[in-house]
Amino acid sequence: MVRTAQEATVPSVPPALGDAVQRVVLPGRFEMRRGGALEQVQIAYETWGTLSSEGDNVVLIFTGLSPGPHAASSPGDPSPGWWEYMIGPGKPIDTNRYCVICVNSLGSCFGSTGPSSINPVTGAPYRLGFPELSIEDIAASARKALQQMGIERVHAVVGASLGGMSTLAYAMMFPQALERMVIISAAVRASTFAIADRSLQREIIRSDPEWRGGDYDPDRPPLNGLRLARKLGLMSYRSAVEWQHRFGRERIDARATPGPFDMEFQIESYLEANARKFMSVFDANSYLYLSRAMDWFDAADHGETLPDAMARIRATEALVIGVTSDFLFPVAQQRELAQLLSDSGCTTTFAELESVQGHDAFLVDEARFAPQVSRFFAPGPG
Amino acid sequence: MVRTAQEATVPSVPPALGDAVQRVVLPGRFEMRRGGALEQVQIAYETWGTLSSEGDNVVLIFTGLSPGPHAASSPGDPSPGWWEYMIGPGKPIDTNRYCVICVNSLGSCFGSTGPSSINPVTGAPYRLGFPELSIEDIAASARKALQQMGIERVHAVVGASLGGMSTLAYAMMFPQALERMVIISAAVRASTFAIADRSLQREIIRSDPEWRGGDYDPDRPPLNGLRLARKLGLMSYRSAVEWQHRFGRERIDARATPGPFDMEFQIESYLEANARKFMSVFDANSYLYLSRAMDWFDAADHGETLPDAMARIRATEALVIGVTSDFLFPVAQQRELAQLLSDSGCTTTFAELESVQGHDAFLVDEARFAPQVSRFFAPGPG
Repeated sequence: MVRTAQEATVPSVPPALGDAVQRVVLPGRFEMRRGGALEQVQIAYETWGTLSSEGDNVVLIFTGLSPGPHAASSPGDPSPGWWEYMIGPGKPIDTNRYCVICVNSLGSCFGSTGPSSINPVTGAPYRLGFPELSIEDIAASARKALQQMGIERVHAVVGASLGGMSTLAYAMMFPQALERMVIISAAVRASTFAIADRSLQREIIRSDPEWRGGDYDPDRPPLNGLRLARKLGLMSYRSAVEWQHRFGRERIDARATPGPFDMEFQIESYLEANARKFMSVFDANSYLYLSRAMDWFDAADHGETLPDAMARIRATEALVIGVTSDFLFPVAQQRELAQLLSDSGCTTTFAELESVQGHDAFLVDEARFAPQVSRFFAPGPG
Repeated sequence: MVRTAQEATVPSVPPALGDAVQRVVLPGRFEMRRGGALEQVQIAYETWGTLSSEGDNVVLIFTGLSPGPHAASSPGDPSPGWWEYMIGPGKPIDTNRYCVICVNSLGSCFGSTGPSSINPVTGAPYRLGFPELSIEDIAASARKALQQMGIERVHAVVGASLGGMSTLAYAMMFPQALERMVIISAAVRASTFAIADRSLQREIIRSDPEWRGGDYDPDRPPLNGLRLARKLGLMSYRSAVEWQHRFGRERIDARATPGPFDMEFQIESYLEANARKFMSVFDANSYLYLSRAMDWFDAADHGETLPDAMARIRATEALVIGVTSDFLFPVAQQRELAQLLSDSGCTTTFAELESVQGHDAFLVDEARFAPQVSRFFAPGPG
């Protein structure tokens, strides 16, 4: 049952931006929900499939905190994407039928405007001068990006984790702009535990002396803080049961000149390998902004009450998926979301999956996730 | 339901050593299980109640990773101890009947010899020159300390968490030295998740530049690393359900000149208050040594197989307690331990408690824990 750390590492961290990435610049000033504004916002995205002549077959994908827009391979970038099993010809989100667009979230670091981008007004990187980022800004900037492409209404919006929150925000803010939606391992608001977990990740990054109040040298970013924060993140993304089965108490094969308190167990090596990959591609300030946005998000902000906010939604059909081993977004949160959607008049399917991979199961548990999403997107009445 | 951070902080961190602390110095050289030895080992302890003329009423208490020997108040130190509800006249561990002795673990920093102690051979603090510490060393040093006091056999050994591992080690290593035992929220070995969690805590401490490879200035210890590690520890000591009820998404009342990414939620303030208290009293190197000892412990090391190791135990009766909301030492681990003890011929009671406070429930959930322990220690047949 025990695999080596290399085999076991989940490829959820995107490589450098590939040739398939496209970019759109939003016209005018982009006002942020919590104050401040951005000029010349750029949104990076990738597409798969072909837009129908009626323009009615778009599926918009919002990502979680860490992935880039490379959700699947394509002729322009044949490397496997982070949701390779889900998107493609004949796959659950079938690119023979749908035109799929995956956006890199505003505030991220894979081509969209974020804290590491150059502020066109000052000519210098935004860093912490980037305005406070909310989930709603991610949704609104994606909406404007689609409008720039001439797309006013999409067939469906799909998102997991942070992407699920972005999807929900999109549905509340632009009720007429989508027909259906899929929300995976997300919630109407973060739990107390999730807030604590992310707050600590952010504090670990900020505690790295190289962070320098957010004003780090791009050639000397706070790698150690990012590495440790990622490990803490990973601990909340998978499940204890999965790790017990995969790694148990197995030791690392070769302890090459270990220092005091160095790694000794396979689980430590697995976390280290994944965290090192992550720190080499992700911007620390982007991490801080996106992480905090998840803590802040509360669907109830969109109405007098939570049900009132949900009543704004006009999507006709929703699929909500939760995983029993997820302790970052416990399955009770998806059950609550499904009930609220159903109460608000949206025809909602709720799938509670027994995956052992926890919060990140959607990335790897094809056997359980693919049939749910396939059924939702299958041709025919419904 | 929401309390302020001050009220909500659990007083599990001991104050400075009080007047009730006693010390015993072990004769000769103390050989460590994994190699190396210590000279003039000192073990700090506190006692409550009176030793019977037959010397047969001793209850030995092993602590978790962080508490000191002040488990309960006494005339010598009237401040409340970390297990105040459990130990005292008429309490579950009734000091009208038992002579209770709580030892500070070898390697800790509350009076017992540890990495911050002066090595009598060199005249300088041990720091990372302290030999590798195992749970077995904690058990063996306590055994020798009792022998120095003239106590060869105790009525019972009691321990929770790390203390539960120490109790189990004691029972396997010195089968004739105890009659009964109580093991709470512990296991025959740590889970993969628990190893990952503690490994990351240790790495956070080691990443603090002030740690200086363990050779920090006692006046400038790695406070920030210890503070962040403690927060991570706390996240595994309590439960998500408890925090949801206690703190929800409540904000801090007054945000005094907050910096970017400063605390905003009550849960953050609760963790901060607890962690600050902890970092001011606990030694960073002690934390590293004790934490690693928990990862290493494996009861199976005491025999050809795990059941073989457990068969060494001669204690006649055991109480094993687990908590359903504990995800650091999941209740399945206590169920396994109880079954193994029972299979090895020890009359074992297993109590699965529904406390919401997670791994640390034994510190606070008097309503559920006190009756179990009372029953076990009640006078009468059994």
